[in-house]
Amino acid sequence: MLVREGLVMLADTRTNAGIDDVASHRKLQLFEVRGARTVALATAGSLSVSQTAIGLLRDGVADPGAGPAPTLAGCSSIVEAAHLVGRAILQARAEFRAATDEGVQTDASVLLGGRIGPEPLRLFLVYSEGNFIECDPDTPYLQIGEHKYGKPILDRALTYDCELRETLKLGLLSMDATLRSNLSVGLPIDIAVLRPDGTTPEVEHRIEGSDPYFSELGQRWADALLAAERSIPPPPY
Amino acid sequence: MLVREGLVMLADTRTNAGIDDVASHRKLQLFEVRGARTVALATAGSLSVSQTAIGLLRDGVADPGAGPAPTLAGCSSIVEAAHLVGRAILQARAEFRAATDEGVQTDASVLLGGRIGPEPLRLFLVYSEGNFIECDPDTPYLQIGEHKYGKPILDRALTYDCELRETLKLGLLSMDATLRSNLSVGLPIDIAVLRPDGTTPEVEHRIEGSDPYFSELGQRWADALLAAERSIPPPPY
Repeated sequence: MLVREGLVMLADTRTNAGIDDVASHRKLQLFEVRGARTVALATAGSLSVSQTAIGLLRDGVADPGAGPAPTLAGCSSIVEAAHLVGRAILQARAEFRAATDEGVQTDASVLLGGRIGPEPLRLFLVYSEGNFIECDPDTPYLQIGEHKYGKPILDRALTYDCELRETLKLGLLSMDATLRSNLSVGLPIDIAVLRPDGTTPEVEHRIEGSDPYFSELGQRWADALLAAERSIPPPPY
Repeated sequence: MLVREGLVMLADTRTNAGIDDVASHRKLQLFEVRGARTVALATAGSLSVSQTAIGLLRDGVADPGAGPAPTLAGCSSIVEAAHLVGRAILQARAEFRAATDEGVQTDASVLLGGRIGPEPLRLFLVYSEGNFIECDPDTPYLQIGEHKYGKPILDRALTYDCELRETLKLGLLSMDATLRSNLSVGLPIDIAVLRPDGTTPEVEHRIEGSDPYFSELGQRWADALLAAERSIPPPPY
């Protein structure tokens, strides 16, 4: 979510290779040179492809011009970083496909948010095909992965003028809806919050299963939804 | 939705053959012999397949035993009807696939609810492959088509002990969430409500775009959600 007051990125940590093979892996990564730049990457899709792509972004993505392999740390703008993320995904997918059977799922998508140098905060969604779109104030959020259950609350309540902590709360409510309806999404949830004028994340937090605020959030929201539902008169049909 | 007090079936009427080719077609059909049986069918997926299947159910589904082609009106139990719906879908898909290119989408699924004769009310989901599952009190609803946006409210609020008009209201809230997040779902919405002891639908109604209750429902729900969201304290992170 990218609002006037800043950027909020959230990712769960549940991964699965089938319903009988569930594990927990970090899907929100911070690339940070304190005081100079902060870039956050959230990933969805094939974990082997996204982890390989993250590795390439750290160590160097093969350059078609045969120059030195560029890294995310070497990017001088966030758009340059988005291009590089797209190339890293394509390279990871190509390596994976060359070694596996046809029909193996290699889709992976990335949310790339942050700022590099004096630029404003920006947020991009980089697709499996390496192309990308940018978030803008008309719809101040982007989603990857299991996005449908958590979309209605964002569509109803999130605007570009939402306060930053209100935005984080809406993101957590969206996550709560998704957690309840899809077993392939689960705690812990990683959070990164950046202010437009800061380069260091204002919040960098992991919500574990025992988190009292998140438990209470889910319970209060469930109670409030039921109360709201009951306050509406029954249909006259 | 199948609760202790009865059956509620809802379907929108939006169909599309691509985002630039949107139309309105009835997707909830009542097969009714007043006083004797009421069966409601809701369809999703390929409209040509589901319409062909409905036609076969009226006129006769080819019988592999080369006997007379059975119709839905001739079924003597709701389970027999579910089997016949499965065979009608398979026959419609086979006709369609024989005449078209490979890769053309022929998926179609059906919700079949109602009662035949002295049986209790039952509700089935018949898949594209002709097999089916039955709704039971543990999860007192089944969905087809675009189901994710509208699922969280049902998961949170619908139980087998909900009153019938409360159940209808929850169904409409679920539809409202889906309408707001997916353009391929749209008004009018068709409704059928059956009591366990009745064979004639207690409610048979179409909600048009101008329906004051449904408009107010959406607005009241949006307001109540925003109020509920604001009542929750901001995250302490």
